[in-house]
Amino acid sequence: MAEISAEDRDALIAAQSMSATTKRATVPALEEILYEPLPVLDHGFIRVVDYMGDDAAIVQAARVSYGKGTRQASQDEGLIRYLMRHRHTSPFEMCEIKLHVKLPMFIARQWIRHRTANVNEYSARYSILDKEFYVPAADQLAVQSSINNQGRGEAINHDDAEKILDLMKGDAAQAFNSYEQLINSDADGKPIDPERPALARELARIGLPLSTYTQWYWKTDLHNLFHFMALRADSHAQYEIRVYADVIRDIANRWVPLASKAFEDYRLHGVELSRDAIEVVRRRLRGENVERETTGLSLREWRELQDLLGE
Amino acid sequence: MAEISAEDRDALIAAQSMSATTKRATVPALEEILYEPLPVLDHGFIRVVDYMGDDAAIVQAARVSYGKGTRQASQDEGLIRYLMRHRHTSPFEMCEIKLHVKLPMFIARQWIRHRTANVNEYSARYSILDKEFYVPAADQLAVQSSINNQGRGEAINHDDAEKILDLMKGDAAQAFNSYEQLINSDADGKPIDPERPALARELARIGLPLSTYTQWYWKTDLHNLFHFMALRADSHAQYEIRVYADVIRDIANRWVPLASKAFEDYRLHGVELSRDAIEVVRRRLRGENVERETTGLSLREWRELQDLLGE
Amino acid sequence: MAEISAEDRDALIAAQSMSATTKRATVPALEEILYEPLPVLDHGFIRVVDYMGDDAAIVQAARVSYGKGTRQASQDEGLIRYLMRHRHTSPFEMCEIKLHVKLPMFIARQWIRHRTANVNEYSARYSILDKEFYVPAADQLAVQSSINNQGRGEAINHDDAEKILDLMKGDAAQAFNSYEQLINSDADGKPIDPERPALARELARIGLPLSTYTQWYWKTDLHNLFHFMALRADSHAQYEIRVYADVIRDIANRWVPLASKAFEDYRLHGVELSRDAIEVVRRRLRGENVERETTGLSLREWRELQDLLGE
Amino acid sequence: MAEISAEDRDALIAAQSMSATTKRATVPALEEILYEPLPVLDHGFIRVVDYMGDDAAIVQAARVSYGKGTRQASQDEGLIRYLMRHRHTSPFEMCEIKLHVKLPMFIARQWIRHRTANVNEYSARYSILDKEFYVPAADQLAVQSSINNQGRGEAINHDDAEKILDLMKGDAAQAFNSYEQLINSDADGKPIDPERPALARELARIGLPLSTYTQWYWKTDLHNLFHFMALRADSHAQYEIRVYADVIRDIANRWVPLASKAFEDYRLHGVELSRDAIEVVRRRLRGENVERETTGLSLREWRELQDLLGE
Repeated sequence: MAEISAEDRDALIAAQSMSATTKRATVPALEEILYEPLPVLDHGFIRVVDYMGDDAAIVQAARVSYGKGTRQASQDEGLIRYLMRHRHTSPFEMCEIKLHVKLPMFIARQWIRHRTANVNEYSARYSILDKEFYVPAADQLAVQSSINNQGRGEAINHDDAEKILDLMKGDAAQAFNSYEQLINSDADGKPIDPERPALARELARIGLPLSTYTQWYWKTDLHNLFHFMALRADSHAQYEIRVYADVIRDIANRWVPLASKAFEDYRLHGVELSRDAIEVVRRRLRGENVERETTGLSLREWRELQDLLGE
Repeated sequence: MAEISAEDRDALIAAQSMSATTKRATVPALEEILYEPLPVLDHGFIRVVDYMGDDAAIVQAARVSYGKGTRQASQDEGLIRYLMRHRHTSPFEMCEIKLHVKLPMFIARQWIRHRTANVNEYSARYSILDKEFYVPAADQLAVQSSINNQGRGEAINHDDAEKILDLMKGDAAQAFNSYEQLINSDADGKPIDPERPALARELARIGLPLSTYTQWYWKTDLHNLFHFMALRADSHAQYEIRVYADVIRDIANRWVPLASKAFEDYRLHGVELSRDAIEVVRRRLRGENVERETTGLSLREWRELQDLLGE
Repeated sequence: MAEISAEDRDALIAAQSMSATTKRATVPALEEILYEPLPVLDHGFIRVVDYMGDDAAIVQAARVSYGKGTRQASQDEGLIRYLMRHRHTSPFEMCEIKLHVKLPMFIARQWIRHRTANVNEYSARYSILDKEFYVPAADQLAVQSSINNQGRGEAINHDDAEKILDLMKGDAAQAFNSYEQLINSDADGKPIDPERPALARELARIGLPLSTYTQWYWKTDLHNLFHFMALRADSHAQYEIRVYADVIRDIANRWVPLASKAFEDYRLHGVELSRDAIEVVRRRLRGENVERETTGLSLREWRELQDLLGE
Repeated sequence: MAEISAEDRDALIAAQSMSATTKRATVPALEEILYEPLPVLDHGFIRVVDYMGDDAAIVQAARVSYGKGTRQASQDEGLIRYLMRHRHTSPFEMCEIKLHVKLPMFIARQWIRHRTANVNEYSARYSILDKEFYVPAADQLAVQSSINNQGRGEAINHDDAEKILDLMKGDAAQAFNSYEQLINSDADGKPIDPERPALARELARIGLPLSTYTQWYWKTDLHNLFHFMALRADSHAQYEIRVYADVIRDIANRWVPLASKAFEDYRLHGVELSRDAIEVVRRRLRGENVERETTGLSLREWRELQDLLGE
């Protein structure tokens, strides 16, 4: 579990014990985990802080209706799947979610590329950063992939992995030690040397590693949440952001189960075929024995198509 | 009151009678008017359909905190005013509101220029439009302004106004009559002439006037709602969108009273002075008698400054 | 050809005769048609007013390189196709285009839904609108589709079409006649009756039909231009916006031929298959005789899949 | 000067020696510095890679005109100043600029918060990072401010500064040394130990400091460039991003001198006064001796107002 200070834990429990009556669309399955930090990596978490709308709200917006969705759940499901299939994205924008996320900075730098979202990040100019940095689990260490320039290949053997982790931990500990020296403040916030000046925080932090944890409030609509999931739950995404995307998938499944199912079926596990690729499929289904040279596909695309077709 | 069909009224009452328990931030003053159409112009309305967050949520995001805002309301207010004063806009983006709006199309065309929002509009390709168009009240008719090229000048006298309204109503009635003929469907949805083909709706509607009412679901965050209010509640905005902005101001005041007050004080009723204009103020406060020729201000700017200074 | 006033034609010719030397990426095939109004519908046009970047600029940004793209054109093409195939969209955002478009207002209302663009529209509050409205060609008139609720079905026979066009033209002429009366200004800008007041333009225009032409400057990046084309060149889009999308396709083909080809191959003529649909294809390619009941596909999806497979 | 490899320098010179004829708006003063790296900080730079539009293009879009701006430069200037003064922002969006920027990652994290822009960043998953990190100049080291929680106070004396810089340099050198060990690649790209595996780049880089330099292509429109300058050239911005904003101001001044002047006059050096603050000014100009207690201003706001008024 992510470590939380006693004070933060009290605030969190107070929030969870609140209860109000509302006429708004409410989702009991999501209320169950509201405010609770769901652990990710060694010190990270995702907390659902607020949400707006549910599956019926998608239908309601698509119909520009006065009430709540349609009368029958089965009609709602059919419409939601139709909207997803035909990329009618605007009704999905009518649901909104707000998350509190704790994550390493090198992941934050990938995450923030999703521009259609609102963000408030913990300020290391204003406040002192906690001494928390990400260290990969030994079995996550892998060599540079030789076939995918931006990915991992085979796992690294146990002995080499231990040496790598020692190096990583040593450097990070050293950087955080220097940070404390520079801001002249120990773990309890007391001056290490009362005679010495404290370097401005905005400068002291620049030596900290990219593995340092930060936190932010992040708010986005369901369409853009799905887009985030599509890119970041993908096998080409870096493992350390994929695990966040996976937790978000679980959250979406509690929140809007019909829309999530449609997303998984049509987007996440759906495939795209180019003009030439679908022509290959058509020819083969007509019984033709298709040679690559007759298709317009590059060797790479040909192999990707074979993979897609499970061959 | 805006006319609503019996069926829509039933759906609306059903929505208003829903009640659920939630741990989310809840605003009783806004719950009071949830789902209720607030009338605007002759047939328009704004309905609050959903909302996320409250004043405390702004503080909570600014602090990236675990609980709800600060412990004391007075601290919340101070921070909110500080954020507004210094244009720290991102915490205000952490509140979201969803409105159902009925409005004439010429206003919809102005409204949609606010791009940072989500929209689902009633489709006149898919559905038949209601026979509803905006007719100005007689006392809203005014001549083209001679000093403001995009505004209204003096009111038009009663007799001329009556003639203008007759012309407007006659043309609109004629256009809607043609619409019914083209789609071959009377007010009850029955074919006017079963032998005749019905023109596609997407073509039949192109002769309808810009005063025709449309509807949409519109969702945006509080920062962008304030921006909308700043531009559209301004005296230079067209009267017909200003009345919508005024209703939204009332809604915001119920929803986030502290933030709304700060917005009114710092933005809506605040003023901007150029480098040259503030220099004029400084010189005058030092007792200098300032002539325009010594200031760098154009005649127009000089007069605007005098207006601002209440002279 | 779109009608342009003598004055506008002079300004246009002056712009076309300008010539400067630049170190920027320049595309001769696009320079050929720069500033020239390309006609669309009965009175509309698209003019390319400016552009930034070319095919090589996409590669240059993807590589974050100091020079221009790669050394060999074939490498550029391979990379561009890879980026398009894997939806690496950000390099395509590094090209930008600015268009001057004249279009009917009911199309403008669809067009403006593309939010990631910059727009300056002719103001009917500030200026007087030209007396120009769209009238469909007789062979474009079609009945409401019985299978597609938002589309057209069979063409309407010649006699009925003539009656419809007469009705459309008559109503529009009447609305424009009233407009002139209300603003008290004839086609030459002279008062019709010097004794009568002129109604404010912002009010006078509300009775004009949705078929009235407007104009705007519209600027967007290549990624969003492709997204526009994907949605608006699609067979489900209304004919009157599709013809604009088709002209834009021709422009893109002059401007960035490699990227345009990749877009056509992977996006515009590519297909998407859901998790269940691709499984059907796999089973059939293994020689299985697949019945719909065993697939998870609805009847509608089953038929869509058969269409895609050319069966 | 920023160090550039011989290969990059060749590519750069090749780009600078290109010359084409264009009908597009062209700005000779900006062409002069096109592609040239303008140095910032110890290893950073900004290069203008491309641009679209000029001062006249702002006017052209505001008028939705066929030709180029107005006939007289003085009219252009008047209109541009009017647009800036009244926050008519959309015409400024019609100019676009593309920059290649090299900057430390802690600055990149602030910069990227400007969402309305296009970005392509050098990938440390795909490629090996250069061994370049930012070290502040000794005279830039300052203590944490006691009055501004997110800023710097007094300068640090020479001896303490030297110790701090030694600590910073030592830690960064150590982190880069570990990076080379982990990716098993020396400065020339040769394996340090051919027997040892190379850790995946996406993992090896997580121990690098936030002061590590990265690079990106960044493209935005003039309105958003001004917004960037307003926030980042402000005295509250961190020094290390302010120096980038200052270089951008110089670039904007070459590119669009009229719009830049208007921006400096009305935005950058303009001031905002709240409803209560402008009332204080009005009362004082009427000769009243105003006490804070009668004004509604907090002590902090009162002092801010006195500062603004130069008292």
